Amino acid sequence: MRWTQTLIPTLKEVPSDAELRSHRLMLRAGLIRKLTAGAYSYLPLGWRALRKAAEIVRDEMDRAGAVEVHMPVLQPQELWDESGRMDDFGPLLMKFRDQHNKVNILGPTHEEVVTDIVRNTVSSYKQLPLTLYQIQVKFRDEIRPRFGVLRSREFLMKDAYSFDRDAEALDASYQAQYDAYERIFARCGLTYVAVEAESGPIGGSASSEFMVPSEAGEDLIVSCSSCEYAANMEKAAAKAPEAPADPAPQRKMTQVDTPDQRTIDDVAAFLGVRPSDLIKTMVYVCGGKPLVVCVRGDHDVNENKVARVAGGPVELADEDTIQRVTGAPVGFAGPQGLSRDVPLYVDHAVSIMAGAVAGANAADAHVTGVNPGRDFPLDHLCDLRYVVAGDGCPHCGADLAISHGIEVGHVFKLGTKYSDALGAAYLDENGASHAMVMGCYGIGVNRIIASAIETLADDAGIVWPMSLAPYQVLLTPIRAKGEEMAAAETLYRELTDAGVEVLLDDRDARAGVKFNDADLVGIPIRVNVGARGLAEGIVEVRDRATGEVAKVPLGDACARLAGDVRARLAALNP
Amino acid sequence: MRWTQTLIPTLKEVPSDAELRSHRLMLRAGLIRKLTAGAYSYLPLGWRALRKAAEIVRDEMDRAGAVEVHMPVLQPQELWDESGRMDDFGPLLMKFRDQHNKVNILGPTHEEVVTDIVRNTVSSYKQLPLTLYQIQVKFRDEIRPRFGVLRSREFLMKDAYSFDRDAEALDASYQAQYDAYERIFARCGLTYVAVEAESGPIGGSASSEFMVPSEAGEDLIVSCSSCEYAANMEKAAAKAPEAPADPAPQRKMTQVDTPDQRTIDDVAAFLGVRPSDLIKTMVYVCGGKPLVVCVRGDHDVNENKVARVAGGPVELADEDTIQRVTGAPVGFAGPQGLSRDVPLYVDHAVSIMAGAVAGANAADAHVTGVNPGRDFPLDHLCDLRYVVAGDGCPHCGADLAISHGIEVGHVFKLGTKYSDALGAAYLDENGASHAMVMGCYGIGVNRIIASAIETLADDAGIVWPMSLAPYQVLLTPIRAKGEEMAAAETLYRELTDAGVEVLLDDRDARAGVKFNDADLVGIPIRVNVGARGLAEGIVEVRDRATGEVAKVPLGDACARLAGDVRARLAALNP
Repeated sequence: MRWTQTLIPTLKEVPSDAELRSHRLMLRAGLIRKLTAGAYSYLPLGWRALRKAAEIVRDEMDRAGAVEVHMPVLQPQELWDESGRMDDFGPLLMKFRDQHNKVNILGPTHEEVVTDIVRNTVSSYKQLPLTLYQIQVKFRDEIRPRFGVLRSREFLMKDAYSFDRDAEALDASYQAQYDAYERIFARCGLTYVAVEAESGPIGGSASSEFMVPSEAGEDLIVSCSSCEYAANMEKAAAKAPEAPADPAPQRKMTQVDTPDQRTIDDVAAFLGVRPSDLIKTMVYVCGGKPLVVCVRGDHDVNENKVARVAGGPVELADEDTIQRVTGAPVGFAGPQGLSRDVPLYVDHAVSIMAGAVAGANAADAHVTGVNPGRDFPLDHLCDLRYVVAGDGCPHCGADLAISHGIEVGHVFKLGTKYSDALGAAYLDENGASHAMVMGCYGIGVNRIIASAIETLADDAGIVWPMSLAPYQVLLTPIRAKGEEMAAAETLYRELTDAGVEVLLDDRDARAGVKFNDADLVGIPIRVNVGARGLAEGIVEVRDRATGEVAKVPLGDACARLAGDVRARLAALNP
Repeated sequence: MRWTQTLIPTLKEVPSDAELRSHRLMLRAGLIRKLTAGAYSYLPLGWRALRKAAEIVRDEMDRAGAVEVHMPVLQPQELWDESGRMDDFGPLLMKFRDQHNKVNILGPTHEEVVTDIVRNTVSSYKQLPLTLYQIQVKFRDEIRPRFGVLRSREFLMKDAYSFDRDAEALDASYQAQYDAYERIFARCGLTYVAVEAESGPIGGSASSEFMVPSEAGEDLIVSCSSCEYAANMEKAAAKAPEAPADPAPQRKMTQVDTPDQRTIDDVAAFLGVRPSDLIKTMVYVCGGKPLVVCVRGDHDVNENKVARVAGGPVELADEDTIQRVTGAPVGFAGPQGLSRDVPLYVDHAVSIMAGAVAGANAADAHVTGVNPGRDFPLDHLCDLRYVVAGDGCPHCGADLAISHGIEVGHVFKLGTKYSDALGAAYLDENGASHAMVMGCYGIGVNRIIASAIETLADDAGIVWPMSLAPYQVLLTPIRAKGEEMAAAETLYRELTDAGVEVLLDDRDARAGVKFNDADLVGIPIRVNVGARGLAEGIVEVRDRATGEVAKVPLGDACARLAGDVRARLAALNP
């Protein structure tokens, strides 16, 4: 491809509304342009990179035995009524009424549709296992789209769905996808980490997210400084602390006045203690019934964990309920002296506190000298909070660290949530009917591209891995005329014939402009064809990532370059 | 691929709501399933075929120098306000308000978006010509989707847009697309005809449609029985008739009472003449001014043609205007005695009538013995009507024939309609600004598939051309076990290694079931591996299209089959 024949609108200026490096570079290198909030046009270079990522995904899906289909964007509301998910998505669902006044949903995901297809076409155990996938545009009405293509309203997903006879067979389908994900991200040149993820209170016995570590990521990765343990923040567990060798002083509980001091920080400041000396006591409701949760004052309750121990989704209690359960208005709850009829769930970290401060279950008062176990029961001791840096690894006890990551993939054991709701069943060898056991598996294809740019770029611009590069070689005649252009044209033909994807910068522009653009768009190998080199019979081959330059005899250039391209691709896909 | 690993839900029953052969076969062969009105899921075989068509389109677009991009489905209403097309599309536009209460349009086409991209990224003549294309899902809220994927609400389009300095450069871009279309449809194994098409009153100096002749088509193709002339019904012209050798009798005009006889058929029956003896006189309005149009009683006015001679869009006049122009209520208009201030456009076929019947421009009356030229002026003699079978070819005068076709592609010279409206301009060598001259070029990818099935299938099922076939070879062990299965597995591996796309029917099913399904899904070459053949060291190679069977030594089978596949692909792409 010739530069003047395609459209590569590079920008010198840094776009003012782009916070992230990847977003800025995608705009500056002419990969994308914003059309409307959270919707980007992919220009030629960006689209080539995105298609390469999609092809790697497709290749590995096929290799893993998944079968490609294509489901519509338009989904009838009836299917979502069957699954009961309209409310789960709420305002994130894009939908409209058509000329027949029927509600059409723009698919944010396709569990309902694929389950509908399978319930109508699969009836026998002989047809299982079956994993269907598609690579398709998805829609979510994000209220605040941002970070370029990382959080947009329209995006390209690979979504796969497995259907199996039982949980054991699901394990195999899940593992096949998991393994494929590892190959996909490796082939895309990404450094990634697979972390345990929260699978939610309903269905889902296992779930992992594939994260690309990056300060730009919105997700938090919790990982052990010593062993392999890694989880996302929702899921991560801390090792339960051991009781301190020196047990705390057996001070008596004493009520103190804390007029209008309702928050942890207010109370700590008022009493001259640290937030970690306080017990945070929260009242939740699960299935209409109240429950009380205690975590240390400097910790945050993880409602997913509360939901798991409570056995269903939870929400914060309203003021009336808090008053009823604690006998006090909001802000003065404590674990001591509560009715035994209301379950009291205590986080491990609270159990080793001593002489703590808690709400007094009375207006404008707290108590000091609270000792867990002595002053309130520890029957329901569990993991109820988000981990913090320095917590112990649940596997080995070493320190946990917290870092940012970009979620590029997610694998998920769904169980029978959708097959039960929609009635997707098969008959076994004996004619007995069973719900199919499902898994689902997503990859954000746009995020692969943004992650690669975010993590591999340098100050001068994008640095593509060979597998995603829009072109493999950039041919730059220093001047686009005369013998330089003629030599470049010859090499262009040779390389193209050898199957190398070449971009020829045939612009009538200064060398400095071309070199800056070359660094910006990040083609892995650049070949400078200049008069001085030609006089010596050589071209300069420059590695974008390292900046290393090699002088290569013109006659060897094609073979050398083609070999280098092959070697780099092979290194990513051993 | 193994049959049991993919999803091919063939149906014995003919779906009751599918009118067309292609629709029935796509359902029966398990290529598609309907999700909701006008939206179909593509199952594995259907999706493979659709992707093959898309890849052929992509390949030829690239070869023609077009550059691939990807524009969002979601389009902001503001752009459509700039182009003024909201009203043109009316209820066909799918749209919704997002969380910020902004109207998002689901793109039915992308002229606005691509022009917006180009106005923001192209500024110099050095960047032209530029042709951008995408292969992308489109949306139209058809009130009555039908014929399966031929008229649906969600469909896959290739849309390309060219940007040029001037009309001459547009000619070259247009021709490159036209030539690519010819290669695309030929490679897809389609019989097609390129017909002149109506380009509409605004912009557009040339336009052609690519039609696949088929009784199933909704479009009408007018073609000459002798020369190459072909046009769609909107555009087709008839040769102007020569004055008859024997001019009509010079009867006098006579008014006759025709109480309440307002339609052509009513008047003809009432007076005992043929509809072709009547002059149909219609009053239109163009830009607020009335005009009168006359065609023969058995002909229909083509408003596109009226608009072209009138110089703008036209609509039928209301009753008041008709009364004012003709002096009579609706149903009694005639061309004679009208004010010279109102233009009178007369179709060629009217000019050679003699002793005709026309409305009397008086209530409940007609006149007989009307002679054009004598009784009303023929200053504006033109082509104003739809052609009918038997009309003369405008090129050679031979009879025109009318047949049905499926429109699979459309190329269109837009001119500066969108570049003017959105301000897409470039600077020439002298720094002067000009509007870019645009063309647009569409292909309905789903229609390629449906057309191939519609026109090539036989009573037993689909007959794929090699280029679109989901798999190139179907391997059918008569029994899926023992030596037959072993031999099939070996051949499967050999063929796959040789790059042949093979479907292995590994189902534990009766041979009759497998053979029927094989004919239904239409893989071009089937290889039967049976015990009897193996005893002789041969397999049976059956051609799906002709039914011819050849016995091929097992050892030669792989090379023979791979060669046959290559030869068939080459025959479609010489």
